[in-house]
Amino acid sequence: MLSGGLDSTVCMAIAVEDTGSAPLALTFDYGQRTRRELARAAEIAAHFGSEHLVVGLDMRAWGGSALTDSAIEVPLAAGGPSGHDPAIEVPCAQAGPPAAGNRSSIPVTYVPARNIIFLSVAMGVAEARHLDAIYIGINALDYSGYPDCRPEFVEAFKQVAAVGQKRGVEGNPVDIRTPLISMTKAEIAAEGTRLGAPLSLTWSCYLDAEQPCGACESCILRAKGFAEAGLPDPGVAS
Amino acid sequence: MLSGGLDSTVCMAIAVEDTGSAPLALTFDYGQRTRRELARAAEIAAHFGSEHLVVGLDMRAWGGSALTDSAIEVPLAAGGPSGHDPAIEVPCAQAGPPAAGNRSSIPVTYVPARNIIFLSVAMGVAEARHLDAIYIGINALDYSGYPDCRPEFVEAFKQVAAVGQKRGVEGNPVDIRTPLISMTKAEIAAEGTRLGAPLSLTWSCYLDAEQPCGACESCILRAKGFAEAGLPDPGVAS
Repeated sequence: MLSGGLDSTVCMAIAVEDTGSAPLALTFDYGQRTRRELARAAEIAAHFGSEHLVVGLDMRAWGGSALTDSAIEVPLAAGGPSGHDPAIEVPCAQAGPPAAGNRSSIPVTYVPARNIIFLSVAMGVAEARHLDAIYIGINALDYSGYPDCRPEFVEAFKQVAAVGQKRGVEGNPVDIRTPLISMTKAEIAAEGTRLGAPLSLTWSCYLDAEQPCGACESCILRAKGFAEAGLPDPGVAS
Repeated sequence: MLSGGLDSTVCMAIAVEDTGSAPLALTFDYGQRTRRELARAAEIAAHFGSEHLVVGLDMRAWGGSALTDSAIEVPLAAGGPSGHDPAIEVPCAQAGPPAAGNRSSIPVTYVPARNIIFLSVAMGVAEARHLDAIYIGINALDYSGYPDCRPEFVEAFKQVAAVGQKRGVEGNPVDIRTPLISMTKAEIAAEGTRLGAPLSLTWSCYLDAEQPCGACESCILRAKGFAEAGLPDPGVAS
């Protein structure tokens, strides 16, 4: 599963190393505001010599996220492009109900059921194409306010694969592999560099300007990751 | 979730009775060969006074089923339109691996991960629209060669809703309701008749001719259901 971002690109490089083959690259055009991501995904798939399957599923039809709904503003750190105040919420949120009056620390960039939908489609593609595993670059440490990036979500989904798919009930479920799930962003940057992943092609920014904004949650986490790894970010003009 | 078939229409009538409201009707245009189904779904949603959300997701992009891939023939009983031999497999299939040489009794009309994908999207829609429950007309008795129609699949998916969605981890998961799951087709026909569901608008046939073919698995099960219930089928010209 390849979004065109840093994490999914490093995940794909790991899949290439693990399997010794060029895996099918699956990208979703879900109406994301960052259209640039899609073009980058195509370039990255080509870099790996992979077939690139782009599945269209317009999540704007039901809305609910800053990433698909232009009526909801993407939060930016102070001094960022819009001069907006932070309100960026990062930590890996709690399980269980939040304190009264606190809707939880899950950010407005959460897209309802996004990874659930993406994994479901990937399971259909894997079954139809007779592929044995899905690699998904979700990560529970760095920006998992998102519940669909956590290990317990992956475990629940493996059970769906085991009982809800033909090949699962036949005793051969599609495997779901999450090599980045416990890595810090610094470790992801280092691993991508070690593997020679095409990091200069990746796009992480939640906005869609010529250059990354440097002020959204995703840009900030990426910059912090490369800085902590002591590596230059080849995806950002210096 | 409303496909335009008998089961989903009866399920929707039950949802109307349960909730006393006109629920959002969610239909998928997944590239199904029975385009007629989509038009019927719109008419049925209008009958109930419901908003009708049609989500496009072209499953032909990856293929793998007789219902989306015109290279795979829909099996028909002898004497049916194509004069083809039966090979129709009906029983609610086994869990666990099949006997050697037998790929399982799951029919070629199985669409890889179809209900997994549909339920995932429904969970996204429910969360974005602040809806508390999904009604899905799956049924484990009559034609569940399909693994994604069985209770263990629904249970696994409820766990995904509990741990993989924002509102789930906040202690308020979207509920998944399957009022038809243990009904026979005769009971479904009777329940739909009792509730005054618009059964004349429903479309069950796997083919897309002016009238239902009467020979595909779906037509045969429907006819058997109405016959066993001792009711006329208002969806079939006499």
